[in-house]
This record gives sequence, C-alpha cells and structure tokens, in this order.
Amino acid sequence: MSTGQATRIERDSMGEVEVPADALYAAQTARAVANFPISGQGVPIPIVHALALVKSIAAGVNADLGVLDADLAAAITAAADEVVAGTHDDHFPIDVYQTGSGTSTNMNVNEVVATLANRDRAEGADRVHPNDHVNYGQSSNDTFPTALRIAVTRQSVEQLEPALARLEASLTAKSEEFADVVKAGRTHLMDAVPVTLGQEFAGYARQIALGRRRLAEAAALTAELPLGGTAAGTGLNAHPEFAGKVIAELSSRTGIEFTEAADHFEAQSTQDALVALGGALKVVAVSLTKICNDLRWMGSGPRAGLGELHLPDLQPGSSIMPGKVNPVIPEATLMVCARVIGNDATLTIGGASGAFELNVMLPVMGLALTESLTLLSTSSVLLAERVVDGLEADADRCRELAESSSAIVTPLNKYIGYEAAAAVAKQSLAEKRTIRDVVIDRGHVARGELTEEQLDQALDVLSMTRPHA
Amino acid sequence: MSTGQATRIERDSMGEVEVPADALYAAQTARAVANFPISGQGVPIPIVHALALVKSIAAGVNADLGVLDADLAAAITAAADEVVAGTHDDHFPIDVYQTGSGTSTNMNVNEVVATLANRDRAEGADRVHPNDHVNYGQSSNDTFPTALRIAVTRQSVEQLEPALARLEASLTAKSEEFADVVKAGRTHLMDAVPVTLGQEFAGYARQIALGRRRLAEAAALTAELPLGGTAAGTGLNAHPEFAGKVIAELSSRTGIEFTEAADHFEAQSTQDALVALGGALKVVAVSLTKICNDLRWMGSGPRAGLGELHLPDLQPGSSIMPGKVNPVIPEATLMVCARVIGNDATLTIGGASGAFELNVMLPVMGLALTESLTLLSTSSVLLAERVVDGLEADADRCRELAESSSAIVTPLNKYIGYEAAAAVAKQSLAEKRTIRDVVIDRGHVARGELTEEQLDQALDVLSMTRPHA
Amino acid sequence: MSTGQATRIERDSMGEVEVPADALYAAQTARAVANFPISGQGVPIPIVHALALVKSIAAGVNADLGVLDADLAAAITAAADEVVAGTHDDHFPIDVYQTGSGTSTNMNVNEVVATLANRDRAEGADRVHPNDHVNYGQSSNDTFPTALRIAVTRQSVEQLEPALARLEASLTAKSEEFADVVKAGRTHLMDAVPVTLGQEFAGYARQIALGRRRLAEAAALTAELPLGGTAAGTGLNAHPEFAGKVIAELSSRTGIEFTEAADHFEAQSTQDALVALGGALKVVAVSLTKICNDLRWMGSGPRAGLGELHLPDLQPGSSIMPGKVNPVIPEATLMVCARVIGNDATLTIGGASGAFELNVMLPVMGLALTESLTLLSTSSVLLAERVVDGLEADADRCRELAESSSAIVTPLNKYIGYEAAAAVAKQSLAEKRTIRDVVIDRGHVARGELTEEQLDQALDVLSMTRPHA
Amino acid sequence: MSTGQATRIERDSMGEVEVPADALYAAQTARAVANFPISGQGVPIPIVHALALVKSIAAGVNADLGVLDADLAAAITAAADEVVAGTHDDHFPIDVYQTGSGTSTNMNVNEVVATLANRDRAEGADRVHPNDHVNYGQSSNDTFPTALRIAVTRQSVEQLEPALARLEASLTAKSEEFADVVKAGRTHLMDAVPVTLGQEFAGYARQIALGRRRLAEAAALTAELPLGGTAAGTGLNAHPEFAGKVIAELSSRTGIEFTEAADHFEAQSTQDALVALGGALKVVAVSLTKICNDLRWMGSGPRAGLGELHLPDLQPGSSIMPGKVNPVIPEATLMVCARVIGNDATLTIGGASGAFELNVMLPVMGLALTESLTLLSTSSVLLAERVVDGLEADADRCRELAESSSAIVTPLNKYIGYEAAAAVAKQSLAEKRTIRDVVIDRGHVARGELTEEQLDQALDVLSMTRPHA
Repeated sequence: MSTGQATRIERDSMGEVEVPADALYAAQTARAVANFPISGQGVPIPIVHALALVKSIAAGVNADLGVLDADLAAAITAAADEVVAGTHDDHFPIDVYQTGSGTSTNMNVNEVVATLANRDRAEGADRVHPNDHVNYGQSSNDTFPTALRIAVTRQSVEQLEPALARLEASLTAKSEEFADVVKAGRTHLMDAVPVTLGQEFAGYARQIALGRRRLAEAAALTAELPLGGTAAGTGLNAHPEFAGKVIAELSSRTGIEFTEAADHFEAQSTQDALVALGGALKVVAVSLTKICNDLRWMGSGPRAGLGELHLPDLQPGSSIMPGKVNPVIPEATLMVCARVIGNDATLTIGGASGAFELNVMLPVMGLALTESLTLLSTSSVLLAERVVDGLEADADRCRELAESSSAIVTPLNKYIGYEAAAAVAKQSLAEKRTIRDVVIDRGHVARGELTEEQLDQALDVLSMTRPHA
Repeated sequence: MSTGQATRIERDSMGEVEVPADALYAAQTARAVANFPISGQGVPIPIVHALALVKSIAAGVNADLGVLDADLAAAITAAADEVVAGTHDDHFPIDVYQTGSGTSTNMNVNEVVATLANRDRAEGADRVHPNDHVNYGQSSNDTFPTALRIAVTRQSVEQLEPALARLEASLTAKSEEFADVVKAGRTHLMDAVPVTLGQEFAGYARQIALGRRRLAEAAALTAELPLGGTAAGTGLNAHPEFAGKVIAELSSRTGIEFTEAADHFEAQSTQDALVALGGALKVVAVSLTKICNDLRWMGSGPRAGLGELHLPDLQPGSSIMPGKVNPVIPEATLMVCARVIGNDATLTIGGASGAFELNVMLPVMGLALTESLTLLSTSSVLLAERVVDGLEADADRCRELAESSSAIVTPLNKYIGYEAAAAVAKQSLAEKRTIRDVVIDRGHVARGELTEEQLDQALDVLSMTRPHA
Repeated sequence: MSTGQATRIERDSMGEVEVPADALYAAQTARAVANFPISGQGVPIPIVHALALVKSIAAGVNADLGVLDADLAAAITAAADEVVAGTHDDHFPIDVYQTGSGTSTNMNVNEVVATLANRDRAEGADRVHPNDHVNYGQSSNDTFPTALRIAVTRQSVEQLEPALARLEASLTAKSEEFADVVKAGRTHLMDAVPVTLGQEFAGYARQIALGRRRLAEAAALTAELPLGGTAAGTGLNAHPEFAGKVIAELSSRTGIEFTEAADHFEAQSTQDALVALGGALKVVAVSLTKICNDLRWMGSGPRAGLGELHLPDLQPGSSIMPGKVNPVIPEATLMVCARVIGNDATLTIGGASGAFELNVMLPVMGLALTESLTLLSTSSVLLAERVVDGLEADADRCRELAESSSAIVTPLNKYIGYEAAAAVAKQSLAEKRTIRDVVIDRGHVARGELTEEQLDQALDVLSMTRPHA
Repeated sequence: MSTGQATRIERDSMGEVEVPADALYAAQTARAVANFPISGQGVPIPIVHALALVKSIAAGVNADLGVLDADLAAAITAAADEVVAGTHDDHFPIDVYQTGSGTSTNMNVNEVVATLANRDRAEGADRVHPNDHVNYGQSSNDTFPTALRIAVTRQSVEQLEPALARLEASLTAKSEEFADVVKAGRTHLMDAVPVTLGQEFAGYARQIALGRRRLAEAAALTAELPLGGTAAGTGLNAHPEFAGKVIAELSSRTGIEFTEAADHFEAQSTQDALVALGGALKVVAVSLTKICNDLRWMGSGPRAGLGELHLPDLQPGSSIMPGKVNPVIPEATLMVCARVIGNDATLTIGGASGAFELNVMLPVMGLALTESLTLLSTSSVLLAERVVDGLEADADRCRELAESSSAIVTPLNKYIGYEAAAAVAKQSLAEKRTIRDVVIDRGHVARGELTEEQLDQALDVLSMTRPHA
C-alpha cells in the first residue's frame, strides 16, 4: 500500500484507511482496491456511468419527494453528471472481480460523487454523505443490477442494433447485386442443385434480421429495472414513489423505455434477463459463424480453393509466403463469436448461482455482456464495411462449377424418375460427360420421355434456382 | 447383418440389400441401420411422427395441385396417418447419429409409407414409389428440418407451456399462502433485512412467467417452416403453391399457427431458430436451478440446517442413515437443468456448423431439443405437484431467525445515520443483545433522535417487508 | 400405479407400497419408479452392473472380516453375479433423473440382490436384508460414485482406448500410403506451400495418440474409488479393512488397477475426476471435429469442390438429387462430437454443484460420461473401418492444385528476398502465368540471383514438403 | 488515421502507409491497427514477450547455423531482449481480435525488433529486415503458436502452480488445526453423520493437489512447441537443426523443459494442447467453486445461517445495511471460476475450428488461457492469504449442531438394525428428544440388544468420524 505516493486518511464503519491524496474516492474504495488485486481489469465503464446516472436522477427525485435536502440534492446531481460525462473515469480503480453484488463499485460512485459535491460547497455548509445522501433510498442490491441493465440495454439499442442493421443492409445490397450469379449449391459440402449467390446473401441478411428481432425481445426485458427494491427486494428505506419517478426520468434522459420491474424479487435475486440477453447474442454469434465460414470458403484459393468470391485485400497475409492475402476480418469475427459463446457460458453459470435475495455474480455478468455487445457491434460494422461491401463475385467461375455438377440432373426426376436420373448422374461422373449427352445417349429423348427442348429447359441452371408450377 | 432372421431382397440406386422379411421399410433404411451402429438411440419419435404428418398432407396437396395421381395420394395419406398415429413406431430403427441431414430417416418414412400404401393396392395397380410419390416436391433438406420444427414447436406449445403454467400457478398459490410468513432476508448468504416467504415465492412465479414469455417468442420462430425449399432452398421440383397449402393444412390439423419461412435459405441452411429455442430453455433451466436451490436450503436440516420449510416426504433418503429424507425431486430437477444446459451447448455447436445450403447437424439438434423439452415438461409438473403444493412453512422458526438478524437495524438509518447504525449492529452481535436494547443503551432515544414508539415501529419485522413513504 | 397388473405388497421404513408381482425389486424401488416419471431413460446399465459387482465382492469381504454371516454372504455373491451378468437388466426401471445420490438405484440393486439371494434359501433360513446385509459397510454415498467410476474407467480402458488405437492405426497406415501425394497446403483456407497428404494423416494420427494419453491420465484418477467412506466420507459402519480388500478383489476381477481414494472426502463430496474425464473426452471430440472437417472438405465435390479425396460410398445421399453420395460417417461423428461437448458442459455444471459431504448430480454425470464414452468408441471404429481405410486420393488433382498455387514462390525468399518474391507471386496470379516464367521474366536469373537449376530445384513441390539445410 | 499526430511513411509489399513518427513498428503493424478496431484489448503481453524471446534466440541460432550474418544476428538479439524485458510494451497496439494466425502480432514484433536493431547500426551498415532477417526460418504459423505455448506453459509453471501450492498448504494447515472440530455432516444438504471440520479441509486440500497434478500433465503437452514447422508444418525455409537448437536454448533460458513437437502438423494445425490446458483449468475452477460455496455456507449468518465458521472481515458489506460483512473474496473467486468456465467454452470452439494446415483462432485462445491462468493464480493466493489463513471455527456451534442431528442414530444399525434405527430417528425428531432417550425408551437396552455403555460409545460424535473394526 505504501508506495511513496502522497496519501490522506479516510474513515468508514470499519476504521481508518489510507487513500491517495488526490483520489476523489474514499475509504471503502481504497479497501476494495487493496482487497481485489485479481485481474487488473476494472468494472466496464458503461456500468459506472449508468450508476452515476442513477445517482444524478435519484437525488433530484428524493428532493422532490421531500426526503432529501434540495441543496444537497442539487450538488449531488451536478457531481454525478460529471461522472456520467466521463470526466472522472480514472477514479474507478476497483477490479471487476470484487464482491459479487458490486457494492464496492456502488460505494466508489457514492464516494466520488460525494467528494465532488462537497468540493464546491461553502465552508460550514452541510456535507454530502456517500451513504446517507448519495445512496439515499438505494442499496447496491438494487442499484448495481439496475446500472448493469441500463448499460447493456443501451448498448443493445444504441450500438448493436444499428451495427446489425448496417450489416443486414450490406448483405441485402449484395443479394441484389448477385441476384443472377448462378453457382453450384452445396449440401453436405457435396455438389447440389444450382442456387444464386444472391439467394445465399439474402439468407445471410435474413439471419441478421432475425438476430435483431431476438435482440429487441431480450432488451425489452433487460429494460425492466430492479430499482426500488433496495436491500432485499422489499423496498425498505425507499419512498414508494421513488423508483417509478427515477425510471421515468431515466427513460426521458436516454430515450429508451425503461420500466420498473413487475416483481422486485425476480429482478434482484435472479438475473435471468441477463442470461437471456447473452443467449440472444449467442445466436447472433452462431449466425455470424455461418456467414463468415461461407465467405471464407467462397473466397478460398485463389487457385487451390473454390475461388467463387474475392474478398478485399486488407494486409499482407504471411510473414513467410510472399503475396498471400487472407480473410482477416472474417477470422477476427469468428474469434469474436468464440468469445461471445464463452461469455454465454459465463452468464449461464452466473445466472444459475443466485441464492435467496441476491445473485452475487453481477460484475462478471456485466463484464461478459458489455464485452459481447461491444465485440459484436464493432465486428459487425467492420465486416459490413471492409468485407461485404467490397466483395466481388467471379461469375464465370461460379457458373462453370454450377454447370459441372451432376446434381443438375434433378429436374429430370419428373420426366424419367429418380432411379433413371441417378443412373444418368453416375454415368456422367464416371465418364466425365455432360448430363445432356448421357440423357440422349441412354435413349430418354428417343423413347419420348421428354423432348430435347424440355431437356434443354430442364438443364438451364439459372432456371433451376426458382420453383416452377 | 445376417442374424438368422428371415430376410427379403430390396433394391435402391446403389444396388441390392437384405431387409428383414417383415420390415415395412426397404433398402435405404436397411443400409442406414447397417451404417450407423453408434448409440442404439433412434431419432426421437415425435420427429418421425411429424415427418409422417408432412407426408400425409403433402400427398393431398400434390393431388390437388395436379402433380400427383389422386388415387396414389389417397393411399399415401392413409398410410402416413397410420405412422402419425404411432402404429408403426418399431419400423424406424435408424440411429439418431446418422447422416446430418436426416435423409436416412426421411427415406425410412418414405419407405414405410410406400410399403403400407402398396399393401392394400390391387394387383396390377400403380405402385407407390418412396421417392417419386411419397417424397414428391420434397427433399430431406426441407422436409426433415420442417419435421424437426413441427415437433419442437408442438412440444413447446402443447407440453412445456402448460407444464410451466402449472408450476407458476403452484408457486403463486404458495406466495399467497405464505404472504405473512416473515423471515430473514439473505444477501451474500448473510443475514439481511426481513422479507416474507410469500415475496420469495412470488419472485419464483415471476421467473416462470417470464420463462413462458421467452418460450413463446422462440416458438414463434420455430413455427416458420423451411418446407418448399426442397434440395437447396430454391424450391426446385416443388410446385410454387405446395408449401403454402401444406402448411395451412398443418396449422389446421395441429391448431398451431405454422407459417412458411420468409427466406428458405435462412430456414434451411441455418438452424438459428433451434439454437434460440435451446437458449430459451436454458433460461428456464437457470430459473429452476435458483428455485430448487432455495427450496433445498430452506428445507435443510431438520436440525443442523435452516429448517424454514418442510418438503413433502417422498421416499427413504439413505441406505445407511435411518430416517433420513432428502429433497429428491429438486435434485432430479437440478440434474434436468444440467442436462438442458449441456443440450444448449450441443445446439450451439450444431447451429454453428452449417455450411452453404445445409446444416448437417440436424438429428442431434432434434435429439437435444426434444429431450430438453420433455425433461423440463415432466420435471416442472412433478416439482409443482409433489413438492411445491405440499410445502409447509415453519413460521415460528422463520420469524425467530428474522428477528435475530442484526440487519433489522437498517430502518434506523434515517433516524441515526448509517454509521451510528453500524455501531449498533456490531455491538448487538458482539454482546448478543437485541438491537432495541443497544439503541436505548447508546442514548439515541434519550438524545431525542427517535422516540421509543418510532423505535418499536421501525423494528417491526413484518412492517420492514414493505416500503413506506 | 394401478394398471391392472398383478401386484404384491412390500414395506420399507415409510410403510407399505404396491410392487408388480413378478418384480425382483421391492418397496424402495417401487417408490422411486413412482417418484421420477421424468425421462423414461434408466440409469446406464454399466453402472448397475458395476454396483452389483461391488455387492458381490463386498459380501465376501464382509464375511472374511467376520462381520457378515458366511452363508448369507455366499447367497448375496451368487445373486449379485447374476445381475453382473446382465440376466436381470429389466428389473432396474428407475429413471436416471432421480435422487442425486443414486440412492434409489443403490437400493434397487440391494433389493434385487436380496430377492434373488432369498429365492433359493431354505424355508426358515435367515433372510437376506437389502440394507443390513447386501448394503453392509456401504452407503449409497460411497457405493454409487464407486460404481460410476468403475463403469467409466472400464469403458475408457476396455472400449474407448482400443477404439482410438484402431483409428490411430488406420490414420497411420494412410499416412504411409499417402506419403508421396503432394498437395496444396492451406492456411487461412488460402493457398499455401505444398504438403503431402501423408503428412496431414500423420498429424491426425498424432492427435489421436495424444487423445489416448489424455484419456489414460484421466482414467488413472477415475480409478481412485470412494468406497469405504460410507455416508459422509468418515467410514462410519464400515470395517477399516473393508474398502482395501474389496478394491483389491475388484482389480483382480476386472484386470484394471483400481485404488482406494487417498482422501475419501475429496472422492465422495466432489466429482472432479469425472469432470476431468469429460474434459479429456472433449479434447478427443475437438480432434475428431478437425479430422472429419478436413476429410469432408477434401472429399467435397466431386466437381464443384476440392475433390482431392474419395470417401467410400455408403448409401444414396439424397431423396431428391439422384446419384448424390455424402460423407455420412464423418457427419455422424461430428454430431457425436457436438453431443460430447454438450455432455462436458453438463459434467461441469454437475461437478460444480456439490455441497459439503456429497455431490448430488451423480446420475446425470454418469449418464453424460457413459454416453460420451460409448459414442466416441463406436464412431471412432466406424470412422476407421468404413471411411479412413477406404479412402482413395486423387493424386493428380492434388499435385495439379499444389503446382498452381502461387505460394510455391516461398523457397525463393532466400535468393531474391520476401519483397521481390511477393511481386512475383502477385504478377503470376494477375497474369495467370507460372511462377517460373515470371521469375525469369523479371530478370532474377539474368541478374545472377539464382541459377535456372536452383530455380527448378526450388520450385519442386515434393521437395518443398521437407526442410533442407 | 490522420489525427494531427506527426507521422512518417512506411512501405510493405502492399504499398505505402502512414505510421506515427515515433512508433518503433512499421507498415504492417499500422495496417493491422487500422484493420482491427474491435475490442481495444491488445494481445496479452506475455505472448508478445515470448515471441520476442524466440526472435532473440532464433537470430543467434541462425548465425550459428551460418544462415544469418553474425553481426545482424547480434543486433537482433540485443533488440529482442529489450522487448522481452518489457521496455517497449507500448509499441504493440494491435487488437487481439485480428488475423487468426497472429501474423499481425508476429510482424509487429519483427518490425519493432528490426527498428531497434537498426537504430544503433552504423551509417551504411546492412539494415535488419523484419522478414528476411528477424523472421528468418520462421513463419507466423509456427512462431505465434510457439509463443502462445511458451507463455501459457510459463504461467502454468511459474504462477499457477505455486499459487495452488500456496492454497493447498493453507487448506492443509487448517485441516490440522480443525482436526477435532466435530460438526454435522451434510448430504443432500440434510443432516448426516458427524464429520470433522479438519476432514473437510483435508478434502479441499486434496482437490487442489489433484488440480496441480492435472495442470502439470496438461503443461507437459503445451511445452511441445511447433517451432520449425514454418508455414505449413513442413519446415520449408528453416534449417533442419534450427528448431531443436532454439528450443534447447529456450529451455535453458527459462528453466522449463520445452521440446520440439513430435509431429509438426499436429502441433500447428490443431491446438488440442491448449484445449486440454483449458480443461485442466476448468477442473480447478470446479474445485474452487465447491470450496468457496462450502466456505460461504459455513460462514453464513451470523444469526440466521449456519454460523460454523468465521471468515475474516475485509470491508463493509452493504451500502444500506449497517454492520454487514460479506464473504467477498470467495465471491470474487466464484466469479473467476465462471470466467474460467466461459474461457473453456471459447477454447473448445477455437480448438474445433482448425482447417487443414492452420488453426486461425490463435489470438482468442491465447487471450482466454492467459486470462484464466492469471485469474486463478491471483485469486488462489488471495483466497489462501486473506480467507483460509484467517478462518476461525465456532467449535461449540459445530458440536451442538452435530449432536442435534438424528443421523447420529446410524452407528446403532449394527445393534438394532436399519429399520428399528429409522423408527428411533423419526420418534426423536417428532418428539424433539435425544436419540439416547428414545433408544432406552423403546427398550433396546432393556432387551439386551446393546448395553448402555455401548450406546454411549456409539453415540459419541467425534468417535463417529473414524471407521472402527
């Protein structure tokens, strides 16, 4: 603790503790810094800001309700707003692996806000107290999960939703651009009936659209806030109108419709809403995995792979193989997906670990969710801007592969039956001849099972990509 | 393969194969039985029944559309309906670990239906062909995932939803019965301010209510069916009106609103909807884990535990400790939850493994989901009927613990401040005296910080379980 | 319960209960059957057999130690051996989702053994009691996890180890067969320097070899048995020499070196050894996933894929696309891997759920492990026998792709430097000319940076697959 | 990119790029910084240091082998050693979510080392080139996973192993201190036969001892290094003796026995060894979860919980409940465990994602492993020093609960049989009388089934914690 740094002495209910002289925080924060030298990683800053936002609004509401001096309240609001603005981010040094309720971080915010609020108060004026005033009507047990939900709901609505919309738009634009690029379908990785590249991209776009829907459904429940439950969900020490008023103001300040939890015990002692959001993000990760793998394989080569698609060149690909260029953004995105899936596992363990009136896995759940939301947001936009938007199809290569596939025999089922068609396909492969040749050779046209015109129409690969009456 | 059993010879496009003489299936099923001696576990029968239901309806629709002979169609429908009814469940012997598209099981259904349909046909009448007629306008690639989605949507709506509703009702009834049972709150497992047992049960009920909401949201998307996409999503070989008509009839026959997938590539090449359903089930598992753990701890003892709740005695608990009774249904339910969480991991891997036009993890995804749905359905009802409904609170014990907790000092914050209250709590614990005594002893009443009446009102534990203005 | 079936009345410490007239089990089993109608899936039979094996040996040891009548002991051993032999598998009807200690199944075994033992005893002879005699010196809490560990250790040693050895041998054989098949290396899925197909298969073989090593390390710890701890790990009611003698005999009868747990509290209250085994199986699943995916991609095509390898044709691949053949065994194996990974998650949850003297997730952990062991064993052998052994390389195609790759410029780094080599590679790709042509064209030979002979030697693709001084 | 910051122009094989004027890195690093604005989190610094260590040694070995100028080599070694020492950590700004091979970070190290090496070289002297000299005989594809394995092996051996040893020692010391603290056993959370607190702590210590064993087994395989495989595992462009010599020197400089991979394809294209290490860490997390939960429950209360153990007070526990103290370090450790389990899931996905000659999930796997290793190391030591070492048992409370439990009837089985003992236990509970009273009252002593002395001996709770002949 004694690092030569100038310090001052602070007190809390456990006694005295040394604090860096210029720290805005006080005793409890200093204890927590000393208690948790675990990861070196702080509580994600969006959670800290959300906590401060609650403090800012809470003070005003408590003043309106007549339970807090208006002058103290104004000082608290002004101070908390500085924290919300990010001015004091350096004063939240506690490790994210701390007490499972986030009490240490709640007290860190209470202390910083109190210090800031007191700084400008006149000599002899009443002092703002971190617990009695800043935390009035609150407990870490309702405030911290409230902040957590505010942070992840905002990230969902303000960052991930537009990022996915951006990616969906890119994919949709490409689905239109590639509408007539006919290519070999692949099922089981084996040659299948033709499809268009546009159809594939429309499928990707739809995956993302559904991901947005699932995200919105999950965020609608993280927007239910436990605030007002205080220590155990009962609301002890809070004014009955406190939470409703704070949340109304919160909705107004953020533009997101937050609501008071229908049941404070559910909202406080469980974090099912966070687990569900993690699940929705995992589905997005699963979607992106499929999309990135398809892109990588279509771009594989240039000579020894499929070579259907060209991804934009972003950087030299190898420290030893000259001229190599790799699909680096899809790879980065796949690593993001692996992390998001891991975070989902962390959230599951966290969510299942509650007992009685509190879940004490809150900070790590906050870490996992804010991380996943950030990673998916940034990588989705990168994928759209630097990969999808610049994709170029090799339409000739695509058509060549489509036409080479023996699966184009499929439309003949209705003329010659599945079994005869299978014989045609096998002979075509074995003898490296076209399907058309083999059909004629085996006498299907001669026997009148189909005309040569019907045969040619049936074998048109672009035509195969749409159903016909 | 030759086990002395009587056999007959069947053929498919690969040649001849021996089949048990009395089997309703034919060559492709026999090949698949031989190819996949992996787990001994078949494809879950609800999926087989759903496949047969599709075959039954598809034949009628194809006849209506004029692409299938009406007489053959009628025979197919009649035969498929027998399979739907469960009459021939023994004729689906293929391992669930098979080809990832479920083609083997689709062909198994096609073959059984064809055999049954042909059995009653007149000598010389046209024969029903498994591919050309039963499978008309279909591919395993759209039909099998369609069956999978029908099966899991039905289980969601018909089994799990009412099971959860049953559990929610039990929990709600208990929350009313226990409304005035005041008990010690516990946060961080440590003594906290009082709550009522009823409040805890209302929280549990709300968890389940939200689980039902998430289930419904997920099931709304598994009800989007890939049917009509055929081999690769393009609909090749299917009449454009085929899927719409089949799905309309399916909705009518099941009473569930199924719809045609908005995008067949998404619905067929990805199984995001199944991953999302698995995620919703996982949240239910997380909820049940919290509930069962709380029940087990409240029932712990009878002497050396918390002893707040008595769970119904169901069976002797120990082969060595006489008279012991254990919370066996909560334990079984917790094991169900562990399995459901494992199944979610399987679904994630499965969902992330698609490539191009097909996801080839379908059977294991079907296994994981139908298993999770069954397990949660049966265990939720058991938990409601055999545990929750019979719970008895030890109200005296609950109140005694609540009143013993030093956390009841909390309402005094507003009279004497957090720091003085902390000193009271510590002295009370150290000297094993009541909070009331210590407050008076330390002169708070004498100094006029609060009256004795206010003190008594503040220390009323039931009163603490509700917020006050 | 009353299904018209003939019944008899049995009693236990809780009172009377109806039991099917011909059931070998008694009251406690019947209660458990009624209590747990959850999955329809019984406790995996290898666990039941292992439990019976413990009973068989325990009776003899207790007789030797003088704490059990020798005559009763002999009857118990004879009866238990029938169960071990699988003769009475139908008499273990309790659901695997039961009490978390497996007490119900332990009592099921105790009851069946007692019934069988008493069946042949003379009128008036002492009766064998399920608790007092069959279970003597045991508790479910040490016996059931002991049985679980016996079962999974045996499966590891007797089934999975030889299955993996079989697969490794197949892969090694192919690595030798394919030693000179030069092909394009692929990193990031993009063309890289040449490798041989044999090198790839040697890598696969090494993965499996290391999987065997990890399996053996994990199985060495599941072979540590909790037996002797009885109810809580203290050994109460068991003779101090009991466990040692039983385990020595167990090792002798199975040929596997089992040992008594070094610490009975660790072995009984935690199941870390099972979690670790699940982790080792997961690594095998991860290895198989890589191998199967490589095989599937090398076999992709035949026309629109990589087409480097031909997998044996096992069954028609499509119900709609005639002539299609798919990599069905690799797909089945990938589904096995997804299940094994899910089971690992279940085991993690299970292992983390112990409290004080007992982990009550035992049956589901037994289910997950025996399932994973079976699935990996059967699928590894299938993969070896039906896929790897029959693989055929298309050596011409492989070489053609290898030579087409611009990555073969890499050996020129030492002559012309990375940057000039990159320029050569890019020009070669852009102008679709060979590397050799471009090198000469750009004057590297003319400038004496390397001779034409050195150039040809450097560009020999097979030579590139080995390091040179 | 243009932020007003002074820049210089650098070139690579793709052209020119702006670089901050004072950056030690060059073009490729700058491209990568621009390409991957994803998480804001860099590659874990231990991996960067390990890469630099490889560069340092490699240059010397290449000089010894005569393939690199000795003067250039010396400059490289000196420069790389500065990076190893941590002097230039600010010059590695690339996001960890980057190309999956870590090529960008390998080039970052190559560039920084080259810049440093050239800085002190005389005007006109040959310049060190990042690819041609620093990277000589290497590829990112062997060097980056080598660095990854060096980093995690070192963390395993140098940090986690001693941290676990520290924790094991604390637990063992407490097991001795608490050897005679008899307490109620708990199975299924219900009262069971007595145990000692010392026995429980010995069990915990054994869990950690086995965790160390599993860690060592896993680290033995991460110590197998892919170095020498270069781009695709074949060793192209590396001297055949290069890897062996580098690794020998590496072992010498680190004191850890590293070896060259037995098969370079396995070591490079798969990362099974990392997955296995993650699995070993997960078992440690599972062990710690059990231990921390037991500690938390034993410390629960002080009035309304079990109250058997007192954990050291570290900080005020509540922002609203005065005087509350919570088990904050066990909670933080439980969150660490949740993260480690999530990281295991990430590693599984990563490990399963390799294709052909490369796994492109390396950076995220490195992130997950280094994070888990750090978290477990720091939290294990904290748990030992700040919790376990300071634990105080409430021996009176422990004995009181032990004696109150009706499970102490168990030793009477051998005198009066299981069924009579069960009746005694039930009567004792129902009538709130001691077991001793009820046994006498029911006439077991009077009937001579046991003497009063035998009864007293049997009911001695400390005696029950050991087996007797």
